[in-house]
Amino acid sequence: MKKLNYVDTGFLLAETRETPMHVGGISLYTLPEGVDEQEFLHSLADNLRDVDRFLPPFGDRLKIGPLGLAGNVYWEPDPALDIDYHIRHSALPKPGRYRELFNLVSRLHGTLLDRNRPLWEMHLIEGLQDRQFATYTKTHHAAVDGARSIHLARSMLSVDPTTRLPESPLSLTAWERYRAGLELKSPRNFTDQEIRNVADVLKARMDSGAQVYGALKRFTMAWAGQGGALALPFRQVPRSSLNTSVDSARRFVAQSWPFARIRAVGKAFDGTFNDAVLAMCAGALRTYMENHAELPAESLKALVPISVRAEGDIDSSNAVAAISADLATNIKDPAKRFVAIQESVRAGKAFYSEMSPAEVTLVSMVMQAPAMLMMQLGLADRLPSVNTTISNVPGIQQPMYWNGARLDGSYPASIVTDGMALNITLVTYDKNVDFGITACRRSVPQAQRLIDYMEQALAELEVAAGLVKAKRRAKPKVKPKAKAKPKAKPKAKAKPKAKPKAKAKPKAKAKPKAKAKPKAKAKPKPRPKAKPKR
Amino acid sequence: MKKLNYVDTGFLLAETRETPMHVGGISLYTLPEGVDEQEFLHSLADNLRDVDRFLPPFGDRLKIGPLGLAGNVYWEPDPALDIDYHIRHSALPKPGRYRELFNLVSRLHGTLLDRNRPLWEMHLIEGLQDRQFATYTKTHHAAVDGARSIHLARSMLSVDPTTRLPESPLSLTAWERYRAGLELKSPRNFTDQEIRNVADVLKARMDSGAQVYGALKRFTMAWAGQGGALALPFRQVPRSSLNTSVDSARRFVAQSWPFARIRAVGKAFDGTFNDAVLAMCAGALRTYMENHAELPAESLKALVPISVRAEGDIDSSNAVAAISADLATNIKDPAKRFVAIQESVRAGKAFYSEMSPAEVTLVSMVMQAPAMLMMQLGLADRLPSVNTTISNVPGIQQPMYWNGARLDGSYPASIVTDGMALNITLVTYDKNVDFGITACRRSVPQAQRLIDYMEQALAELEVAAGLVKAKRRAKPKVKPKAKAKPKAKPKAKAKPKAKPKAKAKPKAKAKPKAKAKPKAKAKPKPRPKAKPKR
Repeated sequence: MKKLNYVDTGFLLAETRETPMHVGGISLYTLPEGVDEQEFLHSLADNLRDVDRFLPPFGDRLKIGPLGLAGNVYWEPDPALDIDYHIRHSALPKPGRYRELFNLVSRLHGTLLDRNRPLWEMHLIEGLQDRQFATYTKTHHAAVDGARSIHLARSMLSVDPTTRLPESPLSLTAWERYRAGLELKSPRNFTDQEIRNVADVLKARMDSGAQVYGALKRFTMAWAGQGGALALPFRQVPRSSLNTSVDSARRFVAQSWPFARIRAVGKAFDGTFNDAVLAMCAGALRTYMENHAELPAESLKALVPISVRAEGDIDSSNAVAAISADLATNIKDPAKRFVAIQESVRAGKAFYSEMSPAEVTLVSMVMQAPAMLMMQLGLADRLPSVNTTISNVPGIQQPMYWNGARLDGSYPASIVTDGMALNITLVTYDKNVDFGITACRRSVPQAQRLIDYMEQALAELEVAAGLVKAKRRAKPKVKPKAKAKPKAKPKAKAKPKAKPKAKAKPKAKAKPKAKAKPKAKAKPKPRPKAKPKR
Repeated sequence: MKKLNYVDTGFLLAETRETPMHVGGISLYTLPEGVDEQEFLHSLADNLRDVDRFLPPFGDRLKIGPLGLAGNVYWEPDPALDIDYHIRHSALPKPGRYRELFNLVSRLHGTLLDRNRPLWEMHLIEGLQDRQFATYTKTHHAAVDGARSIHLARSMLSVDPTTRLPESPLSLTAWERYRAGLELKSPRNFTDQEIRNVADVLKARMDSGAQVYGALKRFTMAWAGQGGALALPFRQVPRSSLNTSVDSARRFVAQSWPFARIRAVGKAFDGTFNDAVLAMCAGALRTYMENHAELPAESLKALVPISVRAEGDIDSSNAVAAISADLATNIKDPAKRFVAIQESVRAGKAFYSEMSPAEVTLVSMVMQAPAMLMMQLGLADRLPSVNTTISNVPGIQQPMYWNGARLDGSYPASIVTDGMALNITLVTYDKNVDFGITACRRSVPQAQRLIDYMEQALAELEVAAGLVKAKRRAKPKVKPKAKAKPKAKPKAKAKPKAKPKAKAKPKAKAKPKAKAKPKAKAKPKPRPKAKPKR
């Protein structure tokens, strides 16, 4: 039996019916040509279910001792694992747009996992238009961290559309084959010296070298501005509707943009791709706050995991640190806003520049824990430390296939908590950037508008960077939402000969595909100099 | 603001993530001729959403004071009621059999309601075969009792297929019109004398006249056999897999039988319809336990709400009392088993015979509370008081319509708790009896087999009563399950001209329609003498 570590148990402790601690997301696929949807989805499900030995902890359930979660918690094999409980078929009501998909996933993402079983679910979702189907996965954060879940997702995929998985991607055999294929060094353990170095870093910043929990406690106080001399700009975070107590209902929306567009904006400002993502989100949040008449005088802050790994370092899973980025939402001019964001990110990165990747990992683990402590202390909505989280997860830069079905995009669904009612996570995949927005349904009632505002912000940045001319600026932004309810609903039944085709309906609305959006509004072409190189 | 009473708050207190305290059920409808499914379902949803003032507490959320649930709890109007959260469109994956419906409802019934919103959800479910659609409703037991929810369901329905609801059945206006149509006396309050009479009954049985909570506590001890002289046969309940701690996942299955068949068995044994229902369930439970090699030497006991109202009494909503019925599962002979059950029910009813309906109501309220207390004391799975619950809810004896859609059946989904992992609730409707079985997915992994065993038990009773000849007794029972996976799946897409018709697929399997089952196995015709009279 494997014992859960402090952080994993923390996710169990911090979980309430209002703040489920699972992560997941939607993946969109296109059916291979010529296959029948039902048959193909059943074959995928059969393959997923066909597990001899599970990759831990997908076959394990929690074993909680007499002291409860405060004591030791272990993984033990579920003696009566009920695979049909975990692998599920779902369907969308007609007309099967992304709107219906997001509605379903919003509901699924808001309910708790069963703690008496292995802590994951996977839905195969039928009923989309254009021969697409989707998966929605949901895994407890106590069971997998981000790196593990990305690797798991990748282990299912192949660059070759003719590849078929010989066994379930949830099986230990498949995992071992995948690892072997990666030719990765096995993950190394931290040396005592590295741990001591990190303890020194923490000691220097928190005036404390006590055991982890005590350190974290002090760290929390420092974060909240009540002592310590923490260098990071964690104070002076404005209050907003993003930083209230959350309820259990979620809204999930998603959208893709071409990587080239966002990258071009970054380059034009001598910044990074990630700077451009932050500027795009910052612009959208500013518009959202303005439209809700609550734009704070101080800038919103975002928790931003950043990559700090050295060139050529492929021991990649954990070389990520978290900084608090200033989103400069109090600055109206997009160009000036970009520069302010960029400077804030640079300052944050400088903090880590003298550490080794392993030390960075340890510090980050500690740094991200206070949010959980804040929650447990019930302080989260009174002492907001950041307003939101914006995570950029590096993905795969070429088309991938799952048993022949092309992956069209994958959109992460994450955790919102008291004090942080909005999470934006993005994955780069193929030629796109796939954004998943997870929000508390009550605190952020119009999360879907953020998608429009992000497009608007990106377009403004392109103009500010001189990448495109400012046409149509006087005109109010395109509102694809208005098209959502066609007057004459397509009557599939009335003409049974014609397979109800998605084409008959407006698609621009919520389509998480990069190409759909730009088409709708005279796509700005990136200049040659801004061509993405990666 | 209306204050919640002790019992309602109890349902909130007793709720955990493993034991959600909501009730609900599936209703099956057939689309009116000629209408388009999507259009019709959207018109139903629009009508449901069109509420000016909500029937309380459908527009109210909980307001919990500083003392939490231990203090006063009130209903207050939800200031930002989000009707789209409550009225939901859902769909079944293909082929859209009842199996897919039960899978979906099992999942929906296992998740908690959002406590920050009005405590109900309603799903409109598309994708069934044969132009059927379904609703699944879910309402917290703190918000509605059984009587209220039945009345609400009825207020939507009409005997006239041409009736269209002028306003949402969730609106106060609709409710007031419905009440006026009933010409009911307004529900009267209990007199002090009645309350004192009941206190005397409790005092006599529990040697205590203290305030309610104290009384209930002692009552619990008496129930558990630790003092008091409670006359009811609540002790000597065998342990079984039905009486373990439950987890949060549910299984829900449903089936209809002709009222005439069950009634005929009751008549033939000089018993009631309810006696026959209990005998049918008892036979099924005996088979289930035998097949799981755990048939206890002692008989299983069921909590059975019984009607104790006098002839002609129409103040019907609450004249129900609960008894513990001996299911005589230790008796092999069906006829002898029937007689034993009948005697046990008579003894239980005798307990109430000298009370007024109002007194009975009060006693029952108190009697059903200990299960909640047992849960709170964590004793439920160690001291089982009954093994299961079998509730018979009187319904409407003629076809009903919802905006023109014929109601084909309605199947209640109820609560399971630690110590009681199985609930059987039935409603009589039109010419059928609609059974809904709610079970803990882990403790009762094969709940769907109970449906087959119930048919088997009913057939045995018909033979024992001399209603039909014992044909095919040597042959093993028909297993429609085996047909569930047709080798060649119908390829709807391959022949787009043919609207995928339900007829192409096997239907007997999980069809909750009375006619489907008997057809599959040489339907035994009730003798003339057993003809149902009601």
